[in-house]
Amino acid sequence: MKNYSGIHPTALIGENVSIGEGVSIGPRSIVYDNVELGDNCVVGADVTLGEPTAAIHADPDNYENPPLVIGAGAHIRSASILYAGSTFGPRLETGHRVTIRENTKTGENFRVGTVSDIQGHCEFGDFVRLHSNVHIGQQSRIGNYVWIFPYVVLTNDPHPPSDLLVGCVVEDFAVIATMSVILPGVRIAKDALIGAGSIVLEDVGEEDVIVGNPGKRVASVRDIKSKQDDTAVYPWRYHFDRGMPWEDIGYEQWSAGRKRESR
Amino acid sequence: MKNYSGIHPTALIGENVSIGEGVSIGPRSIVYDNVELGDNCVVGADVTLGEPTAAIHADPDNYENPPLVIGAGAHIRSASILYAGSTFGPRLETGHRVTIRENTKTGENFRVGTVSDIQGHCEFGDFVRLHSNVHIGQQSRIGNYVWIFPYVVLTNDPHPPSDLLVGCVVEDFAVIATMSVILPGVRIAKDALIGAGSIVLEDVGEEDVIVGNPGKRVASVRDIKSKQDDTAVYPWRYHFDRGMPWEDIGYEQWSAGRKRESR
Amino acid sequence: MKNYSGIHPTALIGENVSIGEGVSIGPRSIVYDNVELGDNCVVGADVTLGEPTAAIHADPDNYENPPLVIGAGAHIRSASILYAGSTFGPRLETGHRVTIRENTKTGENFRVGTVSDIQGHCEFGDFVRLHSNVHIGQQSRIGNYVWIFPYVVLTNDPHPPSDLLVGCVVEDFAVIATMSVILPGVRIAKDALIGAGSIVLEDVGEEDVIVGNPGKRVASVRDIKSKQDDTAVYPWRYHFDRGMPWEDIGYEQWSAGRKRESR
Repeated sequence: MKNYSGIHPTALIGENVSIGEGVSIGPRSIVYDNVELGDNCVVGADVTLGEPTAAIHADPDNYENPPLVIGAGAHIRSASILYAGSTFGPRLETGHRVTIRENTKTGENFRVGTVSDIQGHCEFGDFVRLHSNVHIGQQSRIGNYVWIFPYVVLTNDPHPPSDLLVGCVVEDFAVIATMSVILPGVRIAKDALIGAGSIVLEDVGEEDVIVGNPGKRVASVRDIKSKQDDTAVYPWRYHFDRGMPWEDIGYEQWSAGRKRESR
Repeated sequence: MKNYSGIHPTALIGENVSIGEGVSIGPRSIVYDNVELGDNCVVGADVTLGEPTAAIHADPDNYENPPLVIGAGAHIRSASILYAGSTFGPRLETGHRVTIRENTKTGENFRVGTVSDIQGHCEFGDFVRLHSNVHIGQQSRIGNYVWIFPYVVLTNDPHPPSDLLVGCVVEDFAVIATMSVILPGVRIAKDALIGAGSIVLEDVGEEDVIVGNPGKRVASVRDIKSKQDDTAVYPWRYHFDRGMPWEDIGYEQWSAGRKRESR
Repeated sequence: MKNYSGIHPTALIGENVSIGEGVSIGPRSIVYDNVELGDNCVVGADVTLGEPTAAIHADPDNYENPPLVIGAGAHIRSASILYAGSTFGPRLETGHRVTIRENTKTGENFRVGTVSDIQGHCEFGDFVRLHSNVHIGQQSRIGNYVWIFPYVVLTNDPHPPSDLLVGCVVEDFAVIATMSVILPGVRIAKDALIGAGSIVLEDVGEEDVIVGNPGKRVASVRDIKSKQDDTAVYPWRYHFDRGMPWEDIGYEQWSAGRKRESR
């Protein structure tokens, strides 16, 4: 019992489910109607794919489960719940007990850690990393190569409780450190860094470093030096490449290649 | 497999369980002894109802599971755990993976979001809303129409670790925004608003707005204007009605009707 | 169905699993290869023991699950996931839905609450208590008799995202209250107290009380008086004994006995 391969006999599979080559589905996982799993996906135990949306309770007889599309090479760890009605690019990776609700759309290689809770109706670009226990409110829009660390919350109700939903915007390469809260409608610009425990009330400029409660700009990311060797470490894309498309090439060379290709 | 109806054959049902009309119980859910489920309850997959309390370990042979009473029309989402020894009014609604321990008592239409953790020995009034990932310490007392947002913690130990348990009190219509901590024994009065990321050390007056670490009064809720149209938005009960008993009537007319009835 | 005893028929047990006397394993729990469970362990429903590490995906055919060793008298509550490759001293106690990754080592009577997430590659001494929803980053080193309260995060990346991992150190008898964040590499000395909602950027001295964002020293723990009777309450080991090895004896007498024994 090193691990499971194929579809475990205790898994429950609905109708109109499309399962690619080389997919494994663990014990007791439930795949509801209209789910599409790309090739070589690994689905752990006790996972739910295509959880019906709340609409099923209003009219159970006429409810049709909206499609859940999961790209090739996904790795969905045990006890995660992905609702119907979302689309994930290739190489999705989740921790355990993740909840992702309907109308979520992600790019390539989206990674989301254990217990994170994505409330649906939101978008993520390519190579986004959410660590454990991140909460993403509805109407959030997150760019490419964004990092969000544990216990960060992106909110959306400007005067709770209300009927307004004003999501946050996080631009490419931005980093939000542990236990920060982003208030409704705040835009965090490219390459910005939000320090741990910040309560961010206002828009954040490119390359700004924000800390505190309330969050204030204290520096440019270019002012931050490595604790190891006192060299610059931000914008991080020039100094870090693990798991990124510029791994082993470096961001500058990779980016230059992309520009040549797009001419 | 749009969804399940009736009691799934893989569910495990204990002794002296009372199940109302029109109840559905999902795959692999466990219902321990002495659970009472009202009519038309919907119980998802992998739910545990009547989880035995820690007392079972002290004397397993003589342990008797205290009753768990769940009112009609509950909707309990998958992988939630409700301990024995609690009572829920009609129309309970939970997210996924909720944990609610023994000696919890709630009024009508209690809603609690995914991963929230209610430590037991606490009370909630009617129409209380806890969002995802809320933590309620023992001995908390929460009134009616209270809203608590993600990652809020109500604490209870005045000098941890100690043998004292001094719960918080939250009065009717109060709102506690994301990632706030309420210190042991603090009373939050009617219609108060605690801003996101506040650490609340002292009692909060009626209609006060508290923000910061440490939390300070910065305004009356009546000073807050809508981001949409610059009109007053608090006390919220005059401006918001979704899911409330005054839906489509308005709070004033509903409240006037209640006063006439009670004469 | 008061509770289960023995190994439930729906549990899945791997190869080379060693199960002590008087062990119970609940419905649908999975025990992977090379797990050792000491005598009288109680394992709830839907628990995973020996979850394979990420290495299995790199080379599934040659992967060998590293041993998971759980000492006698453990109580592992439902839906918890313990990875292969960790070692727990006697009388481990977990809440529900706990995740503990590989290369975690704990002493005697480690207690960890519901939904807590231990990222692995870390060490805990004897009689450590983590409450619900605590997040421990890799490379953390935690001493004996340490208390960590809900929603505390111990971080490890000094300039995220980077390839550096610099864990926190928490010395014996230290207490970290709710919703605090400890920044990478910070050392919290013996008997220190971190107040709720603190963001701790710098090393903390023995018996220091730290509060705020950023965290500042505001007092000695000896300055704190009981809300009940105005007597000293810290260092807590002289005033609290529930579940501690000095229960009913008092810390001073117990400690004096230990000194005599070690002569």
